[in-house]
Amino acid sequence: MSTDSNLNEEEAREQLLDLAADFYDQFDQGNVPRMQIPTRTKTNIEYDEAEKVWVYGDRSSTRSAKTVSGAQKLLKATYTIDFLADQLDQDRSSTLRELYYLSESWDLDEAQFNSQDESNNLIEDLEIVSEVKREDFHMRPEESGAKVMGPLLLREQTRRGDRDIHCQDDVGQGGYQIPNNPDTIEFLDNDADFVLAVETGGMRDRLVENGFDDDYNCIVVHLGGQPARATRRLIKRMRDELGLPVVVFADGDPWSYRIYGSVAYGSIKSAHLSEYLATPDAEYIGIRPEDIVEYDLPTDPLSDSDVNALESELEDPRFQTEFWEEQIELQLDIDKKAEQQSLAARGLDFVTDTYLPERLTEMDVL
Amino acid sequence: MSTDSNLNEEEAREQLLDLAADFYDQFDQGNVPRMQIPTRTKTNIEYDEAEKVWVYGDRSSTRSAKTVSGAQKLLKATYTIDFLADQLDQDRSSTLRELYYLSESWDLDEAQFNSQDESNNLIEDLEIVSEVKREDFHMRPEESGAKVMGPLLLREQTRRGDRDIHCQDDVGQGGYQIPNNPDTIEFLDNDADFVLAVETGGMRDRLVENGFDDDYNCIVVHLGGQPARATRRLIKRMRDELGLPVVVFADGDPWSYRIYGSVAYGSIKSAHLSEYLATPDAEYIGIRPEDIVEYDLPTDPLSDSDVNALESELEDPRFQTEFWEEQIELQLDIDKKAEQQSLAARGLDFVTDTYLPERLTEMDVL
Repeated sequence: MSTDSNLNEEEAREQLLDLAADFYDQFDQGNVPRMQIPTRTKTNIEYDEAEKVWVYGDRSSTRSAKTVSGAQKLLKATYTIDFLADQLDQDRSSTLRELYYLSESWDLDEAQFNSQDESNNLIEDLEIVSEVKREDFHMRPEESGAKVMGPLLLREQTRRGDRDIHCQDDVGQGGYQIPNNPDTIEFLDNDADFVLAVETGGMRDRLVENGFDDDYNCIVVHLGGQPARATRRLIKRMRDELGLPVVVFADGDPWSYRIYGSVAYGSIKSAHLSEYLATPDAEYIGIRPEDIVEYDLPTDPLSDSDVNALESELEDPRFQTEFWEEQIELQLDIDKKAEQQSLAARGLDFVTDTYLPERLTEMDVL
Repeated sequence: MSTDSNLNEEEAREQLLDLAADFYDQFDQGNVPRMQIPTRTKTNIEYDEAEKVWVYGDRSSTRSAKTVSGAQKLLKATYTIDFLADQLDQDRSSTLRELYYLSESWDLDEAQFNSQDESNNLIEDLEIVSEVKREDFHMRPEESGAKVMGPLLLREQTRRGDRDIHCQDDVGQGGYQIPNNPDTIEFLDNDADFVLAVETGGMRDRLVENGFDDDYNCIVVHLGGQPARATRRLIKRMRDELGLPVVVFADGDPWSYRIYGSVAYGSIKSAHLSEYLATPDAEYIGIRPEDIVEYDLPTDPLSDSDVNALESELEDPRFQTEFWEEQIELQLDIDKKAEQQSLAARGLDFVTDTYLPERLTEMDVL
């Protein structure tokens, strides 16, 4: 899958139509049409130590028209390819949910989807087999990307034409809203030293109010909990194209470590997109369990589900590093978690005057 | 409470300090200090038929220093007033969560909050008693406002100075991000005929892609589920200051009717803010249960909790209108609900070419 550039509509369309042409050729040669895709279960996902992302293993399964249900799957695939090719032709876009509903308007009842899971899975299959990512099919995510504040000038292609936007000078306090397909963005210029991805809105606003983006030439990206695809993609592009270090600042609990994991390593569910979405050298700045001890932060006790989540992180190859094992074991030991905003117990400026600068210096980012 | 204008820092500060001065005077006159606030329980909330919003009834309760716990509450109130007065003096802001954590840094242990509920409630008490809303204390909400796209030119005061932003020409596809305190916005110019508040991101993106904001001179405001305070406030200001009709477009289920309710009538929990946040003449455009029948939309069956929610809406004075009673009873009868995006079953342009224009004409908005 191409990671650096946005496929143009024509290329994406051709790669889709090639799939349909394969079915045609198989028929033509007297063969039963079939489509081979990597098995997408946990047992066929491997952690690629070199690339530091999840990738599919060697096993694959076959959708064949030999069975009625297999034939129906291929029928749905051809209708969907036809819809996507038209959509690209007309330079339009749609969401997964719209695709599901739209299939009700198709002339053949057997081609209609029975559930949204079915249409979602088909799109993932097509992404994997065609090696075109859904944004290049013009399938928009439902979830909005987050917002950006920092010394970055970008150009976004919009339906009204190109817009040049500086993410400090041309936006309000809310910042620049990441569009659903961030590959419509071109980076024009920047004066940034690093990217700081922040979990909570309250902390994002604190950093912006304190002028952290100005004082430290930092692009503040709000994650807003589990980050949307668009947000992860933009962070990855800032790393690759602008060469900026990326650090993730989140609450000090196992769910926030997963947020870090989704930025850095991608997810099992979207292993085929790791190259496109993951930023393997993103680093975790905090809140770390050691901060709870060192800064005597206000805490809450771990719940049972926190403990389970921490234990399953210890089993997760992504977290099997000296750093994470030490931090997670310390957390299980002290039986406490702390929120980002608990740093306010040391005053509203502690995070920007002391905590982040000290940590960024230790991490060689400053 | 002043609804039209943003209190300046000096006025807000004075109203807060007056509260503290009251305690002082009470001491000085040899009285036990006390603070009287309206009782904030469901039984003391009344639906104001004339204003069409929730307001507090006549009952009030008294926080008196006669008891240890009452004295401690007043102590916490004075510390909080002191913090807020300083914050206004320095033109800074903070979140409710930061206030809770920050109290750990106060010199007197008895003044520190024991839980976030306690600090949240105190801020609400202070809002009610001082008649200053929390945004004017510079308490920022945690939750981000949503985004705006449409023919509107505004000026926002930011920490870097004023920014003039046109919500079509100066923004990307994601639109203009509403800041936490939308009273920093001044409306400069607009070419809009109405405001369309949209529940889901997928539908918001559909309207923007189809150019609905251009074709119908419409300001599209994304609600993003239950709308944030900032979003409700901005919608109310568009109604009051720009004289624009407001219509709400949401899924066809009881939870979405509540979203409409929070835009139009405010909530019981924030009855003291109804004048500031609610837009009583906002109308509900759909999805209506009658649409499910009329357009034969793809549906899901009602769950038990859907049915319970619909039944409790029938008991809710806000929904005791002919329109809502008819729709809710129809929905209980057909036992179905439908999402906004199910309109895609009629094609991706049906919503913008047919559904919305027909409905807006019926409603006399177009």
